[in-house]
Amino acid sequence: MYRTHTCGQLRMENVNESVCLSGWVQKVRKLGAMTFVDLRDRYGITQLVVEESAPEEIKANVAKLGREFVIQVKGTVIERASKNNKIPTGDIEIIVNELNVLSESEVPPFTIEDQTDGGDEIRMKYRYLDLRRSCVRKNLELRHRMAQLTRNYLSNLNFIEVETPVLIKSTPEGARDFVVPSRMNQGQFYALPQSPQTFKQLLMVSGFDRYFQIVKCFRDEDLRADRQPEFTQIDCEMSFVEQEDVLEVFEGLISHLFKEVRGVDIPKLEKMTWMDAMEQYGCDKPDLRFGMKIVDLTAVAKGKDFAVFNDAEYIGAICAPKCAGYTRKQLDELTEFVKRSQIGAKGLVYVKYNEDGTFKSSVDKFYTEADLKVWAETCKAEPGDLILILVGPKFKTLPQLCELRLEMGNRLGLRDKDVFKPLWVVDFPLLEWDEETQRFYAMHHPFTSPKPEDIPLMDTDPGKVRANAYDMVINGVEVGGGSIRIHDSALQSKMFDCLGFTHEAAQAQFGFLMGAFKFGAPPHGGIAFGFDRLASMFAGLDSIRDVIAFPKNNSGRDVMIDSPSEISPEQFKELGIQLKMEN
Amino acid sequence: MYRTHTCGQLRMENVNESVCLSGWVQKVRKLGAMTFVDLRDRYGITQLVVEESAPEEIKANVAKLGREFVIQVKGTVIERASKNNKIPTGDIEIIVNELNVLSESEVPPFTIEDQTDGGDEIRMKYRYLDLRRSCVRKNLELRHRMAQLTRNYLSNLNFIEVETPVLIKSTPEGARDFVVPSRMNQGQFYALPQSPQTFKQLLMVSGFDRYFQIVKCFRDEDLRADRQPEFTQIDCEMSFVEQEDVLEVFEGLISHLFKEVRGVDIPKLEKMTWMDAMEQYGCDKPDLRFGMKIVDLTAVAKGKDFAVFNDAEYIGAICAPKCAGYTRKQLDELTEFVKRSQIGAKGLVYVKYNEDGTFKSSVDKFYTEADLKVWAETCKAEPGDLILILVGPKFKTLPQLCELRLEMGNRLGLRDKDVFKPLWVVDFPLLEWDEETQRFYAMHHPFTSPKPEDIPLMDTDPGKVRANAYDMVINGVEVGGGSIRIHDSALQSKMFDCLGFTHEAAQAQFGFLMGAFKFGAPPHGGIAFGFDRLASMFAGLDSIRDVIAFPKNNSGRDVMIDSPSEISPEQFKELGIQLKMEN
Repeated sequence: MYRTHTCGQLRMENVNESVCLSGWVQKVRKLGAMTFVDLRDRYGITQLVVEESAPEEIKANVAKLGREFVIQVKGTVIERASKNNKIPTGDIEIIVNELNVLSESEVPPFTIEDQTDGGDEIRMKYRYLDLRRSCVRKNLELRHRMAQLTRNYLSNLNFIEVETPVLIKSTPEGARDFVVPSRMNQGQFYALPQSPQTFKQLLMVSGFDRYFQIVKCFRDEDLRADRQPEFTQIDCEMSFVEQEDVLEVFEGLISHLFKEVRGVDIPKLEKMTWMDAMEQYGCDKPDLRFGMKIVDLTAVAKGKDFAVFNDAEYIGAICAPKCAGYTRKQLDELTEFVKRSQIGAKGLVYVKYNEDGTFKSSVDKFYTEADLKVWAETCKAEPGDLILILVGPKFKTLPQLCELRLEMGNRLGLRDKDVFKPLWVVDFPLLEWDEETQRFYAMHHPFTSPKPEDIPLMDTDPGKVRANAYDMVINGVEVGGGSIRIHDSALQSKMFDCLGFTHEAAQAQFGFLMGAFKFGAPPHGGIAFGFDRLASMFAGLDSIRDVIAFPKNNSGRDVMIDSPSEISPEQFKELGIQLKMEN
Repeated sequence: MYRTHTCGQLRMENVNESVCLSGWVQKVRKLGAMTFVDLRDRYGITQLVVEESAPEEIKANVAKLGREFVIQVKGTVIERASKNNKIPTGDIEIIVNELNVLSESEVPPFTIEDQTDGGDEIRMKYRYLDLRRSCVRKNLELRHRMAQLTRNYLSNLNFIEVETPVLIKSTPEGARDFVVPSRMNQGQFYALPQSPQTFKQLLMVSGFDRYFQIVKCFRDEDLRADRQPEFTQIDCEMSFVEQEDVLEVFEGLISHLFKEVRGVDIPKLEKMTWMDAMEQYGCDKPDLRFGMKIVDLTAVAKGKDFAVFNDAEYIGAICAPKCAGYTRKQLDELTEFVKRSQIGAKGLVYVKYNEDGTFKSSVDKFYTEADLKVWAETCKAEPGDLILILVGPKFKTLPQLCELRLEMGNRLGLRDKDVFKPLWVVDFPLLEWDEETQRFYAMHHPFTSPKPEDIPLMDTDPGKVRANAYDMVINGVEVGGGSIRIHDSALQSKMFDCLGFTHEAAQAQFGFLMGAFKFGAPPHGGIAFGFDRLASMFAGLDSIRDVIAFPKNNSGRDVMIDSPSEISPEQFKELGIQLKMEN
């Protein structure tokens, strides 16, 4: 037996017990003729003492110990002279009377401590050492706990977890599908699922009624900072439901997680329409941790001598509280910020509503104090506030105002990671027009149902059709999204028409699903949560990478195992493929 | 709201309530002017009644109903005149006062009933309809329940479920790896894991201490009747353990599952050495539901005039109780059975130990009654028993005797699916000699540790080295297997030497794992259970296909979605590959 206790277990009540511990050497300190060793495992740290009177063999062994050696010790628990109240085992220590080195360690390439000297790259290469740091391991423990809580919560509500296949079918529209050549069916390929969408809908057709799965999904896309080629979803679907039923169940799940994991009571979630979210926050994932809503000044700011405003489709503002004292330099920084390529505003207009009630703006030559006062009133500004204004086409300017608002939230420290403000965004448009390809695309996916009252608009003004679609948004992050699906073949055909699919294309891609709908499909709907993102938010982290045991880098590489890599000529031959790369 | 209750919920205490149900039409029966409809969902079946006095609209609607239509009804619960005690809702029925057709159905290609008229092929093509049959759905409900029980059991023991990557590295030995071309790293490939073996060992190096994962694994091999290209494992690993620790934990898990799922108390598992299993049952996965152990007659049956026996390395027998009355035809059948190509015995010798104490055998001209009596005593045969004998090289004959024993077990009805006899098979050989390639292969995998006392044999007689490896076997099926791993780089190198790996080959394949071992690896070991097989055994099924929602056929095809399939020229171009098939 390698241990009687873990390194996080012993307390005052164990004093005088003979124990056996195993773990990693965190630190060795000599104090006169005594040696102290911090022994670490997943459960904690326990202090070992090798006394001057210890057998020579032990003293020789302890002298050889280095950081990260794996050792087993036997000894007696005693009360510590100087207690360490920072760790749960800090009242005791172990007088060592046997010490075995189970495994030596070279000097690790970085220190295995919460505050490490290792950079990102080296920590990724030696990820197995990075995972030893308790701050990293705790993220994965939290993730595990959230998965367990989710599974138990949904199982108790009669949801069944069903494993859907990983080797599925590549579809012509699946531009970002990973594909897998088949050896038994040479020349043909499987695809890895971007989501189990069609399978979960088939399960509803099968009468499974309530399905969920915590499941890996795959997307071969250019990786932005916080994407991974393989990611995990909490994927769910329900039958005989309307939108309200789905929202209620999954609001319950998220509230349960907040309560259990963070000890937070989340009030009933606000429902905000997509249009309100856009107009008030400039995006479909508003951060409600702070106000500073966008105000439409179009009506009040036009009609003077300022051509830029008069010619603009839309004039929008935010009011930054207590920022009227911003310096020239600070205002220049904000102007630079909104001009950045990702945001792309042409310029920024500011109005300082000074504490003394006067106004100072960058458009003073076009507007009187009385004009500016009207703006301030429209913005509900108080003396001391700073009004920031952007103009342009409405749906181009709103996202710019969104970015500006978030930046001001950051500057004012209003985006506390320990505050959580979830909401539902509802009534998304069904379709999105793409200028480049001159066609509509499904905003969620082609199975999303239109609101019944908007169905006639599919023929006359498809862009105006609202969907039975919803996103859950927390602190400006979309953590989940879903919809009530179409369950009627005729309506599904109409949808494919709107998307410009030929009958043949629709049949080739989704024939099996449309076929299934012909044998009695129940009304159904569902949702999928991004589990990596949800876990990273609960852990208070910025990146999903930190809640993934073995993540890939921005080029989709696992630098630890050096993958992807070349394959052998035999493998090419068996698969019936060869390379054909363009230089 | 689509329903107030499910179709399995209503009882006598609901009589007079107004309810709303939704579900599938299982059956429509007319009785005079009344119509009875069986309405089905996942939870049960409820009888609806449309009375003669019902509104004309309802009567018109009900007249149009066909099997598998999805309908919603409102009505009042009443007590049934003729109760049906076969279903839980059999005491009541619903007088329908509103009926909405939610979705029509074409006539399904087979009947959606436990006893269906659909053949395998049509049911696979319309798997979403096959899954409506409650006997099929129940298998997946059981699978879900087993997964939940497993996760909660292991979590309660401090195991953490960690998701390991699906896109990993192809290795030169990974002949059966599925590979995935990378778009961002053209010319390079990921591989899908055949198991998370190296990652779970890295997690032990990381100090995770107790890991598990219910995880999809992939193997591109020719599919025998009961294999799937993607399958699910309960994958586990523990640190600071010896073999006994691992066996105890996972015996606990399996006992827990038997208790909860099947209501069966499993006694402490027997441990049988690999050699005993081979000698007594002819294989490393003995079916202990019945005796009929193999008896070695080599010593007692040689030395007479029968050259076949005298020349044989090994003479083995089983004693089939109460089969002395077997007819010529039955004995011929058995002879044919053992001569089948998969078994490949040259012939079968029988000895009837008649009820009257006399003997009749196929070798009467070589052996006296006294000779045969000695055999019978060696076999512990009773009058009325039939002794069946095979001869040949020992380790070729034992598997033949195993097959014969199982066949006799089947014929005698000794392999009851509701009886479970699990055991541990231990002390497997570390290495297996392959005649064809003239080298040793790891019997489990190259990370399995040899028994410490056998390490010297690695240099002198590698084939004799026993491993710290173990399988859990239930009813003749290997449901799980694992080992204590090597955690020492030097011993791991020695192992690679035994396997004939060059240093470079070992480094290229497992360099990251061997590198990790240099930074303090704890002693560790683990196990993986075949979850599909375990679930199918608990469900009393013959095939793992029946516990998989969307299985593939023997050619690795999903005939429902028609996958694998061709991919587009754009996909080939982006991936930098092209076809090169040989005709």
